[in-house]
Amino acid sequence: MTIRATVWNEYHHEQTNRTVADIYPDGIHGTIAAALQAAGIEAATATLPEPEHGLTEERLAQTDVLLWWGHARHGDVDDAIAQRVAEAVWAGMGLIVLHSGHFSKPFKKLMGTPCNLTWREAGERERIWLTAPNHPIAAGVPNPFVLENEEMYGEPFGIPEPEQTVFVSWFQGGEVFRSGACWTRGAGKVFYFRPGHETYPTYHDANVLKVIANAVEWAYNPAARIADPNAAPNVPVESAPEKIERRGKGLHAEGEEGFR
Amino acid sequence: MTIRATVWNEYHHEQTNRTVADIYPDGIHGTIAAALQAAGIEAATATLPEPEHGLTEERLAQTDVLLWWGHARHGDVDDAIAQRVAEAVWAGMGLIVLHSGHFSKPFKKLMGTPCNLTWREAGERERIWLTAPNHPIAAGVPNPFVLENEEMYGEPFGIPEPEQTVFVSWFQGGEVFRSGACWTRGAGKVFYFRPGHETYPTYHDANVLKVIANAVEWAYNPAARIADPNAAPNVPVESAPEKIERRGKGLHAEGEEGFR
Amino acid sequence: MTIRATVWNEYHHEQTNRTVADIYPDGIHGTIAAALQAAGIEAATATLPEPEHGLTEERLAQTDVLLWWGHARHGDVDDAIAQRVAEAVWAGMGLIVLHSGHFSKPFKKLMGTPCNLTWREAGERERIWLTAPNHPIAAGVPNPFVLENEEMYGEPFGIPEPEQTVFVSWFQGGEVFRSGACWTRGAGKVFYFRPGHETYPTYHDANVLKVIANAVEWAYNPAARIADPNAAPNVPVESAPEKIERRGKGLHAEGEEGFR
Amino acid sequence: MTIRATVWNEYHHEQTNRTVADIYPDGIHGTIAAALQAAGIEAATATLPEPEHGLTEERLAQTDVLLWWGHARHGDVDDAIAQRVAEAVWAGMGLIVLHSGHFSKPFKKLMGTPCNLTWREAGERERIWLTAPNHPIAAGVPNPFVLENEEMYGEPFGIPEPEQTVFVSWFQGGEVFRSGACWTRGAGKVFYFRPGHETYPTYHDANVLKVIANAVEWAYNPAARIADPNAAPNVPVESAPEKIERRGKGLHAEGEEGFR
Repeated sequence: MTIRATVWNEYHHEQTNRTVADIYPDGIHGTIAAALQAAGIEAATATLPEPEHGLTEERLAQTDVLLWWGHARHGDVDDAIAQRVAEAVWAGMGLIVLHSGHFSKPFKKLMGTPCNLTWREAGERERIWLTAPNHPIAAGVPNPFVLENEEMYGEPFGIPEPEQTVFVSWFQGGEVFRSGACWTRGAGKVFYFRPGHETYPTYHDANVLKVIANAVEWAYNPAARIADPNAAPNVPVESAPEKIERRGKGLHAEGEEGFR
Repeated sequence: MTIRATVWNEYHHEQTNRTVADIYPDGIHGTIAAALQAAGIEAATATLPEPEHGLTEERLAQTDVLLWWGHARHGDVDDAIAQRVAEAVWAGMGLIVLHSGHFSKPFKKLMGTPCNLTWREAGERERIWLTAPNHPIAAGVPNPFVLENEEMYGEPFGIPEPEQTVFVSWFQGGEVFRSGACWTRGAGKVFYFRPGHETYPTYHDANVLKVIANAVEWAYNPAARIADPNAAPNVPVESAPEKIERRGKGLHAEGEEGFR
Repeated sequence: MTIRATVWNEYHHEQTNRTVADIYPDGIHGTIAAALQAAGIEAATATLPEPEHGLTEERLAQTDVLLWWGHARHGDVDDAIAQRVAEAVWAGMGLIVLHSGHFSKPFKKLMGTPCNLTWREAGERERIWLTAPNHPIAAGVPNPFVLENEEMYGEPFGIPEPEQTVFVSWFQGGEVFRSGACWTRGAGKVFYFRPGHETYPTYHDANVLKVIANAVEWAYNPAARIADPNAAPNVPVESAPEKIERRGKGLHAEGEEGFR
Repeated sequence: MTIRATVWNEYHHEQTNRTVADIYPDGIHGTIAAALQAAGIEAATATLPEPEHGLTEERLAQTDVLLWWGHARHGDVDDAIAQRVAEAVWAGMGLIVLHSGHFSKPFKKLMGTPCNLTWREAGERERIWLTAPNHPIAAGVPNPFVLENEEMYGEPFGIPEPEQTVFVSWFQGGEVFRSGACWTRGAGKVFYFRPGHETYPTYHDANVLKVIANAVEWAYNPAARIADPNAAPNVPVESAPEKIERRGKGLHAEGEEGFR
């Protein structure tokens, strides 16, 4: 079965900055979506300026894995849409967060941490090392691979301890960074992948694109989406798996909704 | 050095429900604070009705470990206060979340997951097993210990995989639940502890109180609080640990603030 | 591509105990292998009495996922074969450890912990709860499912904190147990699944067999096996990714093997 | 209460190599023990040539935290002593593994993985970054700190995913390495710390010594040592927490020992 990905982009600097526009004439989302298509993934796009940022309930319901790129306009993402994305992840949608998306609302919401870091824009060399032998996200990628010009992100990276650390980066200027990290959130899988500063041609790099396509396949959960990932159902006394009788005093009438 | 705890309570059912008022005439917060004092911990209290819910910046700055009990009025907690609590945790404050606090704003914000579960109010027997040998939170507590009347919470519990699972509960009606679980969030430690339905005298139980006091000691981080846990400092090119020169084109003027 | 599983069994009680022989006339390995075949997995078997316990280098090289059942004769497994199994896991083979295999040499070697527990053979009811929503190992299995007669295993279970806890069991006699747990070891995935005492017909239960087949699919790593999972290659100075010159004094001549 | 540390060293190159002897006239163990003493920790030493390598049952029983340095003579460590160390950790002893101790028998036994890496002896610069904000092991240590001459260790490092990654190293020659990592094994805590090649004066560096002293304090478990960390006690039917009656057929007579 074909995996359905949606590549989301704030789509800002491609329209306001000459350097970025020259590198990504189709937008970062367009470039990534084309690469996913070439890898056999069904890839659509969505952007900030679209109604509901292009992320309607219907769209998310038809998205197996969402990719997220944002940088200058995190604050313009509607809180309700960020929450909708988080709930889709809890229900089973995969999420790939790219580069400056570390400060996006959905990623911060899903991590429960500041997601901060140190940074420097100097076009320096980044060398990305594989730390997890034979992890599916690194399939077919050399260890290490190099991006000759990238923005530096440095530790400490304000994330929960990763469930798996797949990549760690070396920077020419002397820093290191956990560049590829995996988490589970409800029925959904989340992968953060560091590279992708918009003034460098990172998303034209074959290794970067291979990692992103691998990550989409890794994050895909074939199980049916959970209908209500926030459900907290009452189990009536008479439905208890073992026969019991109600004892003591209570707050709730039988079958009543819980508090939230 | 004496640890400074603050016990927070929505303080609702003690004032509106006869059963709860009889069990906790001083409020759940009062009962827990007295037990912490008896264990050598300096314990203050704060409640929902107080200005800023009693959780001013000053109060949090003087709180090493915050304990949180809420149930019926999660929705009345101000979003800004919940965010303030999360940021204090990221900066180094410990947080102990009790029972129905699983649905509190600070806990959900820090976990990044729905934190949902199944439940039944039947006054049934709960038997709490220790899963982590010699964990400091279980020091001096028998394995297992029993609460003769408790509300049932059942799996799946919508949390990130715990960094350490300390307790798992058995319920008379047939369910199980991960009742004690640890996470790190920034410089702060978080512990969730399941028991504590307000219509039963759980917070008068010696084992429960021992666990809570242990958890306060475990969650205490003696390091100085991080001044700004969200800081994402730029490292100017000339301050790079290794000498580099700026290459390629960029978005940012030297020393400029990053986007958020 | 068809997954190649090998079901290993010490094959002892089926040949020495009337009760067990009646339940598993083809051996536990035969019963499980037949179920895997029916699920579309290519399943072979291997047993303790065979030369090299049926686990030659060639056999392991052709095994994508190994399943392990042992109980009375852990001590008769050759240390070198246990080490061979561990190295195959490090190189990418999946491993599913069943029931009393918790005390097997390969499992203990891969966990680095005692893998001990409490136990009772009383034919009591076990109810297995799903703790990880939509985990692939639980696909198509009801939450909970019940085994009317099983041996009890109780906490604390002497394992490293699982990377994912998939199942937790409730026992009629009052205990709980983390019944399904996942780890990564090198390029290999390991799953422990609790049920399966040989005097009860557990491996004829459709849910148990479904979990085992799911686990085989989950544990399968399609990447090429790592040739030498213990390799610790020297990187000669002249091959360093960044140009450096040797400084200071050393122990090793250039290109020399490291110590072990 | 004063923590009792034992610093173990194979004590080989200090006696056979001029460079190492000049840097560590008292042995690596002597240098580290002196620094621990200065930090208020009671520090003894033990070495490979002593009877039972200096690690008798009595000595381990009186050791709160064991530090381990070995390199050229891992193979000369008796298997029974390595097992004894592992069992002491399971029972509650802390263990700090230093540098080339990654290939020591106790560390490999406790990790369950190959613990391999890449390496280069070139006296290059290592810069050690803190990845866990305010972790007690990094207290009072600048972020980053630099060792001007060290051996390189590179990823992939063949360890289980750390429970907490405290340090990541940058190397001048272009590699990265997870240099400080924490695990729990039974009741014991394990910390691996990378620096310490014997031909460089690493254990005279104030930051390195501060980290080691911090790690000893972190690894100390004040709970009483578990008497038998391998115990797997039978729970007789009549002692079950909930009243049950034996059903079905079994292998074991009541109260019989389990198989191993």
